[in-house]
Amino acid sequence: MGSIDVPADRYWGAQTQRSLQHFDIGNDRMPKEVYHAYGYVKKAAAAVNATAGRLPSWKAALISRVCDEIIAGHLDEHFPLYVWQTGSGTQSNMNVNEVISNRAIQLLGGTLGSKSPVHPNDDVNMGQSSNDTFPTAMNIAAVLEIQDRLLPALDALHAAIDARAHRWADVVKIGRTHLQDAVPLTVGQEWSGWAAQLQTAAARVRGAVAELLRLAAGGTAVGTGLNAPSGFGPDIAAQIAALTGHEFVTAPNKFEVQGGLDGIVAANATLRGVAVALMKIANDIRWLASGPRAGIGELRLPANEPGSSIMPGKVNPTQCEAMVMVCIQVLGEDVAVGIAGSQGNFELNAMRPIIINNFLHSARILGDASNKLGEFCIEGIELDTDQIAADVSRSLMLVTALSPVIGYDKASAIAHQAQRTGSTLREAALDSGDISGADFDRIVNPANMVGANAAAASPSVT
Amino acid sequence: MGSIDVPADRYWGAQTQRSLQHFDIGNDRMPKEVYHAYGYVKKAAAAVNATAGRLPSWKAALISRVCDEIIAGHLDEHFPLYVWQTGSGTQSNMNVNEVISNRAIQLLGGTLGSKSPVHPNDDVNMGQSSNDTFPTAMNIAAVLEIQDRLLPALDALHAAIDARAHRWADVVKIGRTHLQDAVPLTVGQEWSGWAAQLQTAAARVRGAVAELLRLAAGGTAVGTGLNAPSGFGPDIAAQIAALTGHEFVTAPNKFEVQGGLDGIVAANATLRGVAVALMKIANDIRWLASGPRAGIGELRLPANEPGSSIMPGKVNPTQCEAMVMVCIQVLGEDVAVGIAGSQGNFELNAMRPIIINNFLHSARILGDASNKLGEFCIEGIELDTDQIAADVSRSLMLVTALSPVIGYDKASAIAHQAQRTGSTLREAALDSGDISGADFDRIVNPANMVGANAAAASPSVT
Amino acid sequence: MGSIDVPADRYWGAQTQRSLQHFDIGNDRMPKEVYHAYGYVKKAAAAVNATAGRLPSWKAALISRVCDEIIAGHLDEHFPLYVWQTGSGTQSNMNVNEVISNRAIQLLGGTLGSKSPVHPNDDVNMGQSSNDTFPTAMNIAAVLEIQDRLLPALDALHAAIDARAHRWADVVKIGRTHLQDAVPLTVGQEWSGWAAQLQTAAARVRGAVAELLRLAAGGTAVGTGLNAPSGFGPDIAAQIAALTGHEFVTAPNKFEVQGGLDGIVAANATLRGVAVALMKIANDIRWLASGPRAGIGELRLPANEPGSSIMPGKVNPTQCEAMVMVCIQVLGEDVAVGIAGSQGNFELNAMRPIIINNFLHSARILGDASNKLGEFCIEGIELDTDQIAADVSRSLMLVTALSPVIGYDKASAIAHQAQRTGSTLREAALDSGDISGADFDRIVNPANMVGANAAAASPSVT
Amino acid sequence: MGSIDVPADRYWGAQTQRSLQHFDIGNDRMPKEVYHAYGYVKKAAAAVNATAGRLPSWKAALISRVCDEIIAGHLDEHFPLYVWQTGSGTQSNMNVNEVISNRAIQLLGGTLGSKSPVHPNDDVNMGQSSNDTFPTAMNIAAVLEIQDRLLPALDALHAAIDARAHRWADVVKIGRTHLQDAVPLTVGQEWSGWAAQLQTAAARVRGAVAELLRLAAGGTAVGTGLNAPSGFGPDIAAQIAALTGHEFVTAPNKFEVQGGLDGIVAANATLRGVAVALMKIANDIRWLASGPRAGIGELRLPANEPGSSIMPGKVNPTQCEAMVMVCIQVLGEDVAVGIAGSQGNFELNAMRPIIINNFLHSARILGDASNKLGEFCIEGIELDTDQIAADVSRSLMLVTALSPVIGYDKASAIAHQAQRTGSTLREAALDSGDISGADFDRIVNPANMVGANAAAASPSVT
Repeated sequence: MGSIDVPADRYWGAQTQRSLQHFDIGNDRMPKEVYHAYGYVKKAAAAVNATAGRLPSWKAALISRVCDEIIAGHLDEHFPLYVWQTGSGTQSNMNVNEVISNRAIQLLGGTLGSKSPVHPNDDVNMGQSSNDTFPTAMNIAAVLEIQDRLLPALDALHAAIDARAHRWADVVKIGRTHLQDAVPLTVGQEWSGWAAQLQTAAARVRGAVAELLRLAAGGTAVGTGLNAPSGFGPDIAAQIAALTGHEFVTAPNKFEVQGGLDGIVAANATLRGVAVALMKIANDIRWLASGPRAGIGELRLPANEPGSSIMPGKVNPTQCEAMVMVCIQVLGEDVAVGIAGSQGNFELNAMRPIIINNFLHSARILGDASNKLGEFCIEGIELDTDQIAADVSRSLMLVTALSPVIGYDKASAIAHQAQRTGSTLREAALDSGDISGADFDRIVNPANMVGANAAAASPSVT
Repeated sequence: MGSIDVPADRYWGAQTQRSLQHFDIGNDRMPKEVYHAYGYVKKAAAAVNATAGRLPSWKAALISRVCDEIIAGHLDEHFPLYVWQTGSGTQSNMNVNEVISNRAIQLLGGTLGSKSPVHPNDDVNMGQSSNDTFPTAMNIAAVLEIQDRLLPALDALHAAIDARAHRWADVVKIGRTHLQDAVPLTVGQEWSGWAAQLQTAAARVRGAVAELLRLAAGGTAVGTGLNAPSGFGPDIAAQIAALTGHEFVTAPNKFEVQGGLDGIVAANATLRGVAVALMKIANDIRWLASGPRAGIGELRLPANEPGSSIMPGKVNPTQCEAMVMVCIQVLGEDVAVGIAGSQGNFELNAMRPIIINNFLHSARILGDASNKLGEFCIEGIELDTDQIAADVSRSLMLVTALSPVIGYDKASAIAHQAQRTGSTLREAALDSGDISGADFDRIVNPANMVGANAAAASPSVT
Repeated sequence: MGSIDVPADRYWGAQTQRSLQHFDIGNDRMPKEVYHAYGYVKKAAAAVNATAGRLPSWKAALISRVCDEIIAGHLDEHFPLYVWQTGSGTQSNMNVNEVISNRAIQLLGGTLGSKSPVHPNDDVNMGQSSNDTFPTAMNIAAVLEIQDRLLPALDALHAAIDARAHRWADVVKIGRTHLQDAVPLTVGQEWSGWAAQLQTAAARVRGAVAELLRLAAGGTAVGTGLNAPSGFGPDIAAQIAALTGHEFVTAPNKFEVQGGLDGIVAANATLRGVAVALMKIANDIRWLASGPRAGIGELRLPANEPGSSIMPGKVNPTQCEAMVMVCIQVLGEDVAVGIAGSQGNFELNAMRPIIINNFLHSARILGDASNKLGEFCIEGIELDTDQIAADVSRSLMLVTALSPVIGYDKASAIAHQAQRTGSTLREAALDSGDISGADFDRIVNPANMVGANAAAASPSVT
Repeated sequence: MGSIDVPADRYWGAQTQRSLQHFDIGNDRMPKEVYHAYGYVKKAAAAVNATAGRLPSWKAALISRVCDEIIAGHLDEHFPLYVWQTGSGTQSNMNVNEVISNRAIQLLGGTLGSKSPVHPNDDVNMGQSSNDTFPTAMNIAAVLEIQDRLLPALDALHAAIDARAHRWADVVKIGRTHLQDAVPLTVGQEWSGWAAQLQTAAARVRGAVAELLRLAAGGTAVGTGLNAPSGFGPDIAAQIAALTGHEFVTAPNKFEVQGGLDGIVAANATLRGVAVALMKIANDIRWLASGPRAGIGELRLPANEPGSSIMPGKVNPTQCEAMVMVCIQVLGEDVAVGIAGSQGNFELNAMRPIIINNFLHSARILGDASNKLGEFCIEGIELDTDQIAADVSRSLMLVTALSPVIGYDKASAIAHQAQRTGSTLREAALDSGDISGADFDRIVNPANMVGANAAAASPSVT
């Protein structure tokens, strides 16, 4: 393939350089998290190979040392490749192999690019193929992103919402179904629903991790484990588990996890689930804060910034809008992931870079947006209790409480009459002759209509 | 392949029967419109073949007569096949060939299933393949659905909205951006925006027809036209144009329109465009009608049915909800169409049934839902002019008119002060000392703030 | 709202009739499974209400008797409503209430439409709202579809594939990655990967049931349980569990499951997961069967029907194509479900009909297509062992086995040399001087290259 | 809102800084192209305002000078904001206003942040709102990306494919439908189909530009044009047209283009159309190049890089894989754009940043990937004419040419017999007694079967 120039101050080699030139498409780079995950893979492989007597201990130690640098992010600038490359991720695997080889050679005082004494394929890639290690790195990166960033962010947002569910547990407000006035509930109950949505969504993400813990490493080129010693799969998984602190195991069927990427596609669907819940929550909040004078106006959002370049004094629900956009992006990226997941052929799904890039991106923006929504919106929300009380008092749907007493049909007539004439519900009820004032006052009491389905407990999927 | 029993009272034959048994999947049947379109194809082919002297005139006449029955829908029950069948649509083409053969034989007093004297392949399918006729029938069905049903429905809905844009051209209301109170516009202006969205969306659908008019017929099996006489493509397109009254032409490159289905995928995207516009319109209407007492309450929707099984007297924006669901369904089906369009291989895109089924379904539900929304919602909408006027009078964003006079920063301070203290804008403005009462009254006049961008003209794409 | 004529031979009433006329959109009817599920809901509610002394026992018994008719499908023709209706499903709930009322009245010899002595709202809907019972019916219908139809179909298809994984466990074939020749594996190993994909996909569906078992019933209008007696939620869930044999429980937070529908959105994503796996399997099979003479040609598919209307003797992978289209449809419908799930507002997600319709449709076509693929494709597949053996013998990628012995770089040179000259791998290897003939024959033995990752065990998510 | 520190070496101000801190979500930055487009908007506005006598000429000249710096990309580092911000793009508009104000002040030797003598709102934003200028900048950026980058890339790729369609116009190959051998066509015909798909796809993109040329500027806050002088819309559009060389005009209805973003959603669908075509082309190429020995093997792709880290000498269709992933990404992003387009409310669609970000990203990766596919794949492709000839010679589907002579049924029997016995088609035909050897040789001549549908002309949508 001819010779190719490589920058003198970079550890990558010819294969990385070729990829850089052949795939200069947009500006989407393979996420750094993939390389950090690959650090664990290569370190674990070196340890297993050394223990098996296949790799000299001093080489394994050297590889391990460079891997620590990779894991710590110190070599990030040496991993420049694009997402849009070979579908197996081979070029990123070779990028890792080349960087480890060259950095190890440098540490020994050798000649960069000499492949000696630490060869990128024969030593660093020993017992491995891109075909099994790239999905392994994908899963490690996905699990770490979920556990270290996404779930803490969701938990924090849940806590902020849940705190308000308790704080406002007794504030009676008008319920709304079909955007139309309905029977009352408490502000706390409404917020408890959001808290529960979020908690359940997070539980689904947690549940998806189980499948991600099953690693392809050990399958090598097509899943048979050719050129890997016996036991390599379980051994490397155990090493990775020890290094990361997460319970990784070897996948029971390597043909499944190399020919397909169904596990991470399924995990991505749980990110979609988070987006679906958060979009509802963000929309509810911005609608409840609509106004301030010609909208619903139950909530007052913090004024973080001027809302308009032309309308002075305008305050907009910008955190909610950002969150809605993030959620829509996640929905779109989930479609890309689903399609990509369906496009595997034979022994390899060659749509790996697009899947891991979208997964990590979706998880990241969901987590970050959750943090921002919590800090700059939820924490500063105040109730407009006057507005809330006024809405309850003039609601016609309190008539529902009469229904078990006078029947649905008579209750319906009362509500329509009140709406037609603009009267209060009490006036219309008494005019109907179907109920006395005393009975009305006893039965139609909003505070008694919010029931015992209190806000406290949010569910979790078991 | 052995013998197979066929119902005695049906015109279909063995190939149809095999398909029925092998593809009994769900209950999605190939749309009748595809068969009606095939009626035109077979009729046109018979005419061209007869003129070329390849098919005896009496056979052509007989085939033509049966095709008229098919076009009229009289033989619908003889086309039972499922959508989920061979990806080329061959089984539906053979269903048509078999029905025409048998019905023609019956008209001659012959023996059903004898294939004589009118053979399903040699006579009815003469000069044709499923590979060129099925996409031909798809395009015909799509164009007819667009022209005969969808566009009239969109035009009618546009007319209903446009009429109200004119009727309410002078009613000043508060504008809303980010769900927050903004500067005023007229109800007519708001409705003119919806009318324009709809008109432009319809124009895009019209524009997509141009590509659908290009027919694959004449390409036969792989686009080369093998077994079709010279000139068959242009001749059959001319016949189809004459029969349908639409300007069908032969596709300039048959490999394009048989290996791919990009034209109908593009047309489907214009259905998505209609959905995007209608979803905005339906959402706007139901939010403007929210309440009646704890929402925005500018519009009153007709009470077509009781809204709740438990809350007496409730009226819900059900037509809008149905429309929103229809639009979401169209968005989902467009995804299926896009994926299917990308999955062609070599000389055939074998995802035809799923594409035409989704296209016709999306077009149909959009058209029907537009009719219903017009008839049962738009036509009955009334303005709550008291609510509208009240919202304008208390709006703080009228301050924007002061901005060119006193500057953005001072205007902003006034608006914030009014919101903080609950005062009117006028009070806060005068308190600020930045403007006199007379100037305020002259400048801050909602009726003068709605500008000259009147509602009358809706645009069209040229 | 005026009077309205209702067909004399139908049990439905005015509200159903109004919906029929107002929502005549396309031809998508609310799935019968939703009504059958509602049969369980109304029967359970009647029992709970009777036990609590709120409903006379004779009324409860009568309602229960009609519910049994509904569950058995005997009253299907009395449920005519469209999918595109009110987003809460109220019209379908009222359809059920009206049918039960009228059928009960008929059984008593009363007057249809009199609402007496069994009132559709006050008696049949007692303690309920559409807002809590419709999602309850959705979940019941979804669980039954999954357990009774989808999972058995997936299990049967898995068994058919798994049987072949074992049957062909020793047939060595060439592996393919990136569509390019790779190192060998056995046919059984390849099929084991498909079996494992399917089994894991089914396990995800099973896992999603847990959340569907949590029922909204008891929340009534907005989740507070207004007008339902204390304990109604747990009691009706227990009744439904007893009637259906599935472990339904009351949802811990009713605001979550009425304001959102995240659980069924998540379950739908597991259907997407099945589609992603099946699409890969169906594509692999049709590509491996490509040819017969100018393709891969490893598999011979059964010739179920003539493949072409113009090319005599053609056999096409039609079951695979139908399956691929089904999978694409499921991907599209999952997008609709995801969007719809995100569009809830306040105390109600008013996108219920579109969600349940897509869920049941996707599940149904996946199940049916799995049955067909198993019966009419998998069961009849034969191996072309001559083709398989020939491909292995001429593969260049067997060179991989040399890599650990002579190093990656020398092995690479040998493979390139063989490809350039058209020689066999052995010839090129010996020409290189890097390896002896004896060593080559010992090391490069395909049967030894397929490893110990045998096909037997397929994994399952725990 | 309190004071906030801004970096001393940056031109942005408090509003930008607030946004940076409140919306630190992922690492998606508003594309630079949006700011460059805004440079045209602000420059045009200054010119119009100066001509109208509303803005002093010296201020306009200063603003214009800074805009030239922005357009040239010299101030890129001063536009740091995230995509996930306010949905109107106000923060990016204010970023532009602040940068122009401060840079102008600096050029005058004034005090950064003093807003004097060039005020970000009163001067730079004069007669404008984010609500009309942000969609204006979106459209400008989209049109420039299409015209300057995407279409040239598509045209170049088309030219490369079209050249090969002509070069190989006479090479007869076997056609494939349903992945199964079909009747022959020429390599040139097959490539002409791809060329036509690409040309038509590009034509659709060109067609979508018409709607993008209609600009919202002049509508200001809600479409009424409040605070903009009469004629501002047409005047600024004319200025922008003059500055950019593209035929921008003022949108006839401002409520349409501010309340909705349907035009760019429609334009995005044409990007989807490009992806659908390119995905088919890339897939066809990689399948035709499958092998080299156990696949189809008609094409030989250039070996740009080693294909495998474990399998020496492997060459993979990496450019095609990158392209397929790019196309899938575009499909996913189109879903996000479609959803976002549907989520407008009232006078503003507040999903602008997500739409323009996805549009520009999709266009960019499609264009770049087209360039790479052309340069590193198409240009280096060679035919394996031996393989192509061998496949033609043994094909059974040549039997199709006999069909018009001996009938479909007899021809079918011959093909099946040949496949069953492994004989050649000629042997089976002669064995059947239905045709003489001389007739067979005359009729079954692949070179005569490829017809007159030559490759030369690719269509374009008019």
